[in-house]
Amino acid sequence: MSSTTGLKKSQLKSLGRILPSDGLVVAPHEKLIYGADAGGRCVMPWAVVRPGSVDQVREIMRWAGKEKVPVIPRARGTNVVQACVPHRGGIVLSCLKLNRILSLDSRDFTAHVPPGVITHELQQAALARNLFYPPDPASVRVCTIGGNINTNAGGMRALKYGVTRDYVLGLEAVLPGGELIRTGARVHKNVVGLDLTSLMVGSEGTLGIIVSAWLKLLPRPQCSATLLACFSQEAHALNTVDSIFAAGVLPSAMEFLPREVLQCLSGYASMPWPAGTGAALIIQSDGTGPGVEEEMSRIRLALEKTLHVDLARQEDEERIWEFRRLINPASFRLGPDKASDDVTVPRGRILEAVEGIRAVAREHSLPVLVFGHVGDGNLHTNFMYDSGIQGMRQKAGLARRDLISLVLGLGGSMSGEHGVGLSKRHFLSRQPGPAALRLMREIKKVFDPDNILNPEKL
Amino acid sequence: MSSTTGLKKSQLKSLGRILPSDGLVVAPHEKLIYGADAGGRCVMPWAVVRPGSVDQVREIMRWAGKEKVPVIPRARGTNVVQACVPHRGGIVLSCLKLNRILSLDSRDFTAHVPPGVITHELQQAALARNLFYPPDPASVRVCTIGGNINTNAGGMRALKYGVTRDYVLGLEAVLPGGELIRTGARVHKNVVGLDLTSLMVGSEGTLGIIVSAWLKLLPRPQCSATLLACFSQEAHALNTVDSIFAAGVLPSAMEFLPREVLQCLSGYASMPWPAGTGAALIIQSDGTGPGVEEEMSRIRLALEKTLHVDLARQEDEERIWEFRRLINPASFRLGPDKASDDVTVPRGRILEAVEGIRAVAREHSLPVLVFGHVGDGNLHTNFMYDSGIQGMRQKAGLARRDLISLVLGLGGSMSGEHGVGLSKRHFLSRQPGPAALRLMREIKKVFDPDNILNPEKL
Repeated sequence: MSSTTGLKKSQLKSLGRILPSDGLVVAPHEKLIYGADAGGRCVMPWAVVRPGSVDQVREIMRWAGKEKVPVIPRARGTNVVQACVPHRGGIVLSCLKLNRILSLDSRDFTAHVPPGVITHELQQAALARNLFYPPDPASVRVCTIGGNINTNAGGMRALKYGVTRDYVLGLEAVLPGGELIRTGARVHKNVVGLDLTSLMVGSEGTLGIIVSAWLKLLPRPQCSATLLACFSQEAHALNTVDSIFAAGVLPSAMEFLPREVLQCLSGYASMPWPAGTGAALIIQSDGTGPGVEEEMSRIRLALEKTLHVDLARQEDEERIWEFRRLINPASFRLGPDKASDDVTVPRGRILEAVEGIRAVAREHSLPVLVFGHVGDGNLHTNFMYDSGIQGMRQKAGLARRDLISLVLGLGGSMSGEHGVGLSKRHFLSRQPGPAALRLMREIKKVFDPDNILNPEKL
Repeated sequence: MSSTTGLKKSQLKSLGRILPSDGLVVAPHEKLIYGADAGGRCVMPWAVVRPGSVDQVREIMRWAGKEKVPVIPRARGTNVVQACVPHRGGIVLSCLKLNRILSLDSRDFTAHVPPGVITHELQQAALARNLFYPPDPASVRVCTIGGNINTNAGGMRALKYGVTRDYVLGLEAVLPGGELIRTGARVHKNVVGLDLTSLMVGSEGTLGIIVSAWLKLLPRPQCSATLLACFSQEAHALNTVDSIFAAGVLPSAMEFLPREVLQCLSGYASMPWPAGTGAALIIQSDGTGPGVEEEMSRIRLALEKTLHVDLARQEDEERIWEFRRLINPASFRLGPDKASDDVTVPRGRILEAVEGIRAVAREHSLPVLVFGHVGDGNLHTNFMYDSGIQGMRQKAGLARRDLISLVLGLGGSMSGEHGVGLSKRHFLSRQPGPAALRLMREIKKVFDPDNILNPEKL
């Protein structure tokens, strides 16, 4: 493929004037990586632009608006739904040079952050000032605030602390044509006009290029503890979840690992649970020391017929969370490829959903691993397969289609945290409904009348 | 004023067919009350419609879309910004007959609620099942969920638990023309498409008639305690706020009462604080028993140079909250009328804001009471005056204008919870900025191309 397909020489020259030195990437071997994300598809971008200032972003968008060239914004590309793949061509706009925290105020409890800041870096900078930025996606050490905002990233702590949208107070964004808009404010409460801030969060780069965000911070919780509880039956684990909530405890995290996941882990490394374990919960509580101890003792009282219990405090907690992190590498024992979704169901229907997902897997003769954020009803579902075997990729696609039918039938959502991207675009007409979809498309036109921003996503 | 100005006889007949019996109100003495809200202005509606079903709402909106008749939705009208006054005429649509909780699920942690349900009624129904609906506006015993959603209501507990938007998972709404849309889902996490749910929350009835909402519930906290701390100086109170956060405590409520408020209360009823008290904090913590005790002991350690401290637990807490509630009746000792705002500033700039507001009041020779949710930076500001004295209303208006300049200069927002309505409409060009305002107006057109829904609000 030609390295600059889709761009005229004169257009490349204009981009070069806006972005001197290494701001413009045209060499195929350098720009290829910008055509992929963690969703497993790669399309060569026409060119990659790497602005180092808001002014450069504005100039690029002014140029792109005039030339009607598609722009696909991205940061670290850790999303798994092909949200920043330039599948119809266009230039990729990398936000990674906009990466210096602008302010972090320990009296205002706010941070002002450009999109290229790594989420973990912000968390650490906040902790150093006794502040706390709760959103904690699994990719926290590599993903960015800009990506988190564009996908409304969730994570383990969403049960108690909510998702990225709950922490975005205001945004600065550049529209196609180069106009800079400001939404919200640097205050914790604000009800002036329509909430453009929330609208832009989770919009997958389709409405504007976010160039900075005002984020809300909390006081830093001083202690935490994590409990691993293993059960013979899944119903015991899920009854335990109900009992914990009934005891007035809202854990910061609560993960459910059904039997297939435990078996897969046991086959991969040495695990602490006894044979016959059919389900496990990993539960975390945070707050003051005595508050955490009280919650942990209530959680222990709520446990129904356990086979194995382990409690870890502070630094020692990682020992338990390591089991959760091993699921991904261990999963590939079941097949070299995975068809991955992160469906959500009403919390009371989790067992029904897990059983239904197993039936779908059996129907298509595929191994499946289901696990996830049980407090939110958010289930990560991986059908494992081998794309080297003819017809297997199609089979996995059919299983995904049946999965989504199942979940929508249970009153759920086809995505709790990952979003739509290209990966679920063809399912989109099934969930929001035609009237809501029409409104979304018309709102998109308000921001981007020529459809140049991440076109055909959402 | 004629009772049906603006409506032809044939139009009234059509409405009568859609709404038999008491669903249509045309008698002036009956419909007058529907022309006012707590914002102190009243305009006679052309007619009042009181649908008893979603189908009736759809028929009304189909008719209104065809006839291009303005529709102003309302419930209990407790908002203070004239958000549901039909100032340019039109029919008022009362949601009060849609008032039966549709479901309340203690495993899903969701409620499905129509707009006319009183917020306190939902809270009580939730508590009876060991569930918790946190948003708690001051008018909770009379206001409705529909009004709360349309204004994105806040309240005392917003510091720890957030505002109404944080609890709305999905909506059903009827658009002009009668189309029913569904946004979001009945699940706790959902990132499919643009977030129309958040967009409709706080839209002051300008985008659609909300006919039901899926709300998120939490486990019920089992204990709470409230502390009253009185200081000689305001700086000591505000330093205390910083120290409490630094100790890792996020109280459920934290109210700041500066010296004018304490003086006004002392002149109104017997108060517990000694002479010379210059500021007070009311701080609430909730959670498990030991968790609350620990937070209260950390809060006590954080107190700087207090003159008086009182701690109350559970039922006894009302004794302290009563002082907060008395501010409103006591305020009228300073003047029979008030010009009321609820500005928000970055949390670290509260003392600066309070001093600045005093300077504005002096400038216009008006008494002022400032107090409020110090943890959020949300300050309720009341300039007191007598509208019977010539020129005083104008004076109060000028003071409000200067207040808003002050707050915007501090990086704040002109409203933290009350919204815009008619009351702040003429200030609107100053806060979101022209580019954001243009987007809001175009989004409004997407939902309501003929501008019949609560026209000229926002």
